[in-house]
Amino acid sequence: MASQVLVAANRGPLSYDLGDDGTLTARRGGGGLVSGLSAALARQPDALWICAALSDADREAVRRGVSEPGVRMLDIDPTTYDDAYNGIANSVLWFTHHHLYDIPREPVFDAEFRRQWDSYVAYNRAFAVALAEEAGEGAAVLVQDYHLALVPGELRELRPDLRISHFTHTPWASPEFLGMLPDDIRSQLVWGMLGADVVGFHTWAWADGFMAGAHIDDTSGIARATGDPQRRVQHQKRGARIRYTDVAVYPLGVDADELRGLAHRPEVDDKLAALRAEVGNRKAIVRVDRTELSKNILRGLLAYRELLTVHPEWRGRVVHLTSAYPSRQDLAVYRSYTQAVRELAERINGEFATPDWQPVLVSVKDDFARSLAAYRLADVALVNPVRDGMNLVAKEIPVVSDEGCALVLSTGAGAYGELREDALTVNPYDVSATAEALHAALSMPADERLERTKRLAAAATALPPTAWFTAQLDALREV
Amino acid sequence: MASQVLVAANRGPLSYDLGDDGTLTARRGGGGLVSGLSAALARQPDALWICAALSDADREAVRRGVSEPGVRMLDIDPTTYDDAYNGIANSVLWFTHHHLYDIPREPVFDAEFRRQWDSYVAYNRAFAVALAEEAGEGAAVLVQDYHLALVPGELRELRPDLRISHFTHTPWASPEFLGMLPDDIRSQLVWGMLGADVVGFHTWAWADGFMAGAHIDDTSGIARATGDPQRRVQHQKRGARIRYTDVAVYPLGVDADELRGLAHRPEVDDKLAALRAEVGNRKAIVRVDRTELSKNILRGLLAYRELLTVHPEWRGRVVHLTSAYPSRQDLAVYRSYTQAVRELAERINGEFATPDWQPVLVSVKDDFARSLAAYRLADVALVNPVRDGMNLVAKEIPVVSDEGCALVLSTGAGAYGELREDALTVNPYDVSATAEALHAALSMPADERLERTKRLAAAATALPPTAWFTAQLDALREV
Repeated sequence: MASQVLVAANRGPLSYDLGDDGTLTARRGGGGLVSGLSAALARQPDALWICAALSDADREAVRRGVSEPGVRMLDIDPTTYDDAYNGIANSVLWFTHHHLYDIPREPVFDAEFRRQWDSYVAYNRAFAVALAEEAGEGAAVLVQDYHLALVPGELRELRPDLRISHFTHTPWASPEFLGMLPDDIRSQLVWGMLGADVVGFHTWAWADGFMAGAHIDDTSGIARATGDPQRRVQHQKRGARIRYTDVAVYPLGVDADELRGLAHRPEVDDKLAALRAEVGNRKAIVRVDRTELSKNILRGLLAYRELLTVHPEWRGRVVHLTSAYPSRQDLAVYRSYTQAVRELAERINGEFATPDWQPVLVSVKDDFARSLAAYRLADVALVNPVRDGMNLVAKEIPVVSDEGCALVLSTGAGAYGELREDALTVNPYDVSATAEALHAALSMPADERLERTKRLAAAATALPPTAWFTAQLDALREV
Repeated sequence: MASQVLVAANRGPLSYDLGDDGTLTARRGGGGLVSGLSAALARQPDALWICAALSDADREAVRRGVSEPGVRMLDIDPTTYDDAYNGIANSVLWFTHHHLYDIPREPVFDAEFRRQWDSYVAYNRAFAVALAEEAGEGAAVLVQDYHLALVPGELRELRPDLRISHFTHTPWASPEFLGMLPDDIRSQLVWGMLGADVVGFHTWAWADGFMAGAHIDDTSGIARATGDPQRRVQHQKRGARIRYTDVAVYPLGVDADELRGLAHRPEVDDKLAALRAEVGNRKAIVRVDRTELSKNILRGLLAYRELLTVHPEWRGRVVHLTSAYPSRQDLAVYRSYTQAVRELAERINGEFATPDWQPVLVSVKDDFARSLAAYRLADVALVNPVRDGMNLVAKEIPVVSDEGCALVLSTGAGAYGELREDALTVNPYDVSATAEALHAALSMPADERLERTKRLAAAATALPPTAWFTAQLDALREV
């Protein structure tokens, strides 16, 4: 039976532009996940995507009653939204799940945090209320990501009949970090998630972390992971019946045809030619990231420096293309990190550059065509995050690589679960091991590199967005 | 059978002063543990304490063959010592066991780390070689702390006949943090510890952490925690027979008579009178710490600020005595933390002070007599470390308190294991909960406060240093 399908996500498949003449124009978002989800939803009758209005133009559209079929935007009070999205989701939950704190000083859970948490609850409740209004009897609701961790629980209270899943695109905090949250907040978070019939993660490392942290025995009720191997959480709220939440893994992959099509547009060919001219006949170590604390760009640069020190034979024979475009520059800690990346790159160039060789080329512009060109060109891809939900770059590069690319991959990336066998894997804190992996990657024979790249590409495309979504929907309907 | 007893610790029971005329004078160290250990050792025939020479005068004593009975100092090359002690023990192992990293930037395990690690191995080996030389057949060797984590393994190789224990005075890192270490280093560290017949910790939280991290299956061999409940680690090095290491907990306590004697010297009475004059008829919240990243002084001040904001009835009626004397000012991260403590204290005074009331009194001088006076005076003791092996301050204050003292205690302190029932316990990251605990502590009826203090003092003195040592020695002899 194909029941109605609803998706809830902070960001929707489209946004509005408000013209000078006051007209609103809808614009579809790009990116693998949104287009994959949109494609999957298009096949479902009565499908609905519920999202937040993100801009003044979006809010204006909601107020005027402007909408597109299959999309409902929620006009949440801007202050509430800002507290929930920036204050809690991206400053507390993001940092907690990615283990990014400067622990002697952060986190601080004070009265201001409590005020923002109330906004997070309100923002989640707005989604739950809208879903409860829109969902038909027994509909399937797929809730996306850490922004909406409380939606399953809120929605379960309102509509016990629904089938609810939640998917976390980030890692899930280890018990050590989840335990930093105030007890009542941690409890709310876990109980929010346990409102779902199925909670999904990119990899077992995060799913196991969730189950370890879902060990609760407090005034709200009792929960514990169960099964052998543990694949579900048994839970019982005080005064309610025992329920189960299945824990599942859906490693999001790449749509090979779509990505290869994008990577071979003339615009990308042009960027590739320009990059080739810059790199010359040297090897290229490529990284492409937002300048995000979790991406570990500083230790990546330190590893490159150690490579040039310990293996001086690579001096003049390799270039490190570091695409590190600014992110979240409203936060001081991101600004100082971005500045530190620039300074370290300059220091390395200062130490090693010769008249005809610049060791590090930093690109701070978010230019997808140039990134794809760098993917195609790369001899070595450096993907060394401290911790990362999946890290699609690790999957994209092997898929579009022109001549094969050796992948240096952190054990902290979600992609490690699927790509470990053909990647050169490194502890992200171990700069010396990363330098040695870069050396091994640069030294890898061309045929081995090509073989590994083929296998990496096969693993990377095993579960493209549409199949990823469909698999979750099928599992939810079987509940 | 009372076999020979040897203690190995970085710091010995005495040190030397070198006079202007070149004469060396031995000086006994103070402090509960050293005096307790010395007293316990004095009862053992042939007891020997092996320690490092810490100063030029100590080294000079070793070179001249000057020594005191029962003590052997090791003259380790100063550079090796500095790398091992400051570089590895206090900058890597301390940070790892206390979870103190600014994770996006630290730790960095690079070539410099490897160089320092070699020094740490050499420094540990020097202890192991000296112990192997000095120990009689079947002697009991009690190795102290994270500085000497490799000694049991090294010594076991040299002298399989010995009974070896190791005691960790810090916490033990959670698997999440232990896993940041390079694999081979983590393996060396755990195998080093597993050379012991017994490894001891202050509390089960740290012992459990050790067992969780002692799950190894690598080229060195296999180890895993075993027993029900798990109280030992079964391990087998490649090519060797199966061995066991018992995991035990010995929560170090306070010698009540000694401490009360110290706290009632005329010098302390004078300091107490001076403090009383400063505090007036207000309540006193007392904290006494080195300005150490793990002590969480900043969040303590933030909690005090939130107390004054959320419960303004305390304004003018309470003083926060913050004894935060500088520590490790050779490290930039400690200097900046110390500076941040000063600035925050000043900011709070700027926000709330009145002509006749200064809310925070910061004392940066390491003055034990003043600390004891503050202990006696305290209405509330604030002990809120992020993570702390034991935290003896939490045990000392109830023992010497003149009129009973409410204890606000972090769940991250080792003392939490024994004192939780009569303390007001807080998540150290939860500033709001800490503020509420301070409010509850200030509001506690005098009779309840006194009753709790009595029970806290009883728990705090359950295992004073001499008994603590004897219990370990007895357990080791039963192996």
